[in-house]
Amino acid sequence: MEFGIQFFPDVGPDLIPADQYWSEALDLTELCEGLGFTHTRTVEHYFHHYGGYSANPLLFLASAAQRTKTMRLVTGAILPIFNNPLKIAAEIGEVDALSGGRLEVGFARAFLPHEFRVFGRSLDESRARFNEGMEQVRRLLEEENVSSDGEFHSFQNVTSLPRPTQKPRPPFWVATSSSLETFVAAGQGGHGVMTIPRKPELTREWLTTYRQNWKDAGHVGNGRVMYATHMYCAPTTEQARNEAGPHLEQYFKALGEATKDWMEVTSKDYPNHPAMVTEATTRSIKEMMEGNAIWVGSPEHIIECIETYQAGVGAIDSASIQANFHTLSLDQASASLRLFAEHVMPRFI
Amino acid sequence: MEFGIQFFPDVGPDLIPADQYWSEALDLTELCEGLGFTHTRTVEHYFHHYGGYSANPLLFLASAAQRTKTMRLVTGAILPIFNNPLKIAAEIGEVDALSGGRLEVGFARAFLPHEFRVFGRSLDESRARFNEGMEQVRRLLEEENVSSDGEFHSFQNVTSLPRPTQKPRPPFWVATSSSLETFVAAGQGGHGVMTIPRKPELTREWLTTYRQNWKDAGHVGNGRVMYATHMYCAPTTEQARNEAGPHLEQYFKALGEATKDWMEVTSKDYPNHPAMVTEATTRSIKEMMEGNAIWVGSPEHIIECIETYQAGVGAIDSASIQANFHTLSLDQASASLRLFAEHVMPRFI
Repeated sequence: MEFGIQFFPDVGPDLIPADQYWSEALDLTELCEGLGFTHTRTVEHYFHHYGGYSANPLLFLASAAQRTKTMRLVTGAILPIFNNPLKIAAEIGEVDALSGGRLEVGFARAFLPHEFRVFGRSLDESRARFNEGMEQVRRLLEEENVSSDGEFHSFQNVTSLPRPTQKPRPPFWVATSSSLETFVAAGQGGHGVMTIPRKPELTREWLTTYRQNWKDAGHVGNGRVMYATHMYCAPTTEQARNEAGPHLEQYFKALGEATKDWMEVTSKDYPNHPAMVTEATTRSIKEMMEGNAIWVGSPEHIIECIETYQAGVGAIDSASIQANFHTLSLDQASASLRLFAEHVMPRFI
Repeated sequence: MEFGIQFFPDVGPDLIPADQYWSEALDLTELCEGLGFTHTRTVEHYFHHYGGYSANPLLFLASAAQRTKTMRLVTGAILPIFNNPLKIAAEIGEVDALSGGRLEVGFARAFLPHEFRVFGRSLDESRARFNEGMEQVRRLLEEENVSSDGEFHSFQNVTSLPRPTQKPRPPFWVATSSSLETFVAAGQGGHGVMTIPRKPELTREWLTTYRQNWKDAGHVGNGRVMYATHMYCAPTTEQARNEAGPHLEQYFKALGEATKDWMEVTSKDYPNHPAMVTEATTRSIKEMMEGNAIWVGSPEHIIECIETYQAGVGAIDSASIQANFHTLSLDQASASLRLFAEHVMPRFI
């Protein structure tokens, strides 16, 4: 099992200005490379303090490339629905070059209704735009002289530049939280999957389907599963819960605010989202900690959490750790990551 | 007078792979900061080896931010016509944060017909899309809760994130090569202007108009003019011309190939471009060197070039140096920049 660090900003300028946020993220990335973490990752979101500091994940990754030597740089995730595939492909080629071939590209369908509203996109086009966009980007990276007559974007005889440093292209991941169809397609396509905390029995079912489809399509290996979650490690579980608890509360409050539109909108492309948002915003932090979905406690307790979670969902390959959620300070996040690296990671790598 | 370094890639994967190109660009940027250069800059272009390695200038600048401490990071330039203003504004905020407030943003109308063709944009919409896009980006950076009902993009009640680190926003520049109208608008708007080698008497006329409009609009100072050109410095002028000459030839050959469509297309928004392209692709390197528009020679010769050029056009504030054009090696470009910094720059700063 590998470990990486993930940045999902959930603050606005009233709490932490963006220059401070990103300066700390770069410091933590550099620290984590030294501690044995193998990737750094960030999101694409807009117009709301839940995620909005990271409008283009490739920008942070282009910076992080110069603060690290070996870490993989992961988008978690790029949203084709809000972007032109011609631009996505070119930017991927550029960051793959700027990092000496260390980029990995997660794609997602997006899930915040307010983003669709501002960009003038229909929620009901989510899957169609995702499928078309990701496939066009894949072809633009792998092939030259590409023509594509799409429903949303068309182009003739295009060779995207720069050509990727990794051949045929950087590895792809698909981020999904609730769609069996997406797990099936990711397995068939030979892409990794990025997941988040859900009920372990649901995740197990999805991952089993994913790995089966991976094998059935003839891909080598057993697929690749990356799990993103919150982590806070302190000498005692009580201390960890006391220190991290209020920040977790605020993080999930921001998520609740950013997703509250799901109480009022529906979309054929998001049949599960209203229920999922209710689940995410009504479950208590205590419940999530006790379900081992988020990892907060002493090193011994976190080891137990990870072992139990792994047994529950049927093995994950990489964990992407959110360590500086809400206003946890750089010192707090650093101390937590050091303790985690010293006492927890050796048990799993 | 200030000096910066500019990267305008004009090679494809057959000559220099993109990872090598950008690695050398970052090395040269770091070198130049140590030598007293005050900015680094790059372009936005697509699908052709003339510029295509730099699809999003903010990506290189996000990397360069981590290799420098004080340098200004300059887009030269962002092209609103191929981008959504909501995304441009957010990305500007993010790179301003990642650099601790060191971003400066040049905008341009674009000028390569093949880019318009692939993106499905009309050349005749160039000015309208530029004006609307740049104004929407300005408002999204300076204001909160912005609504705009545009011809090309509309949005309601948007607060762009991250808010810029520099208040009210990073300085703006407008890149223009041949349009009096653009010089007038830049002066009125209080923006800097970015120019390229043209006949000195033309440039003088435009800059005079620009500075007059700057003053008439009540802006403090005398405007800001950045001039981008090629430079190669060697112990003797003969050596400099011998070493740089073939690379200059190839650079202008690439420019000629990328602009050859202007022989066949016309646009009301580009009345001067067919003639300008003919001028650019038929004048000889020798003619350009002798006209002092590009700076190739011994330190003494380059000092003369700059003094003569300055006298001809009526003073520029900042020179943005292209030092590694075509396949000039990192060692050659570094030696040229060191010699320039040691013997030429002290005469002007």
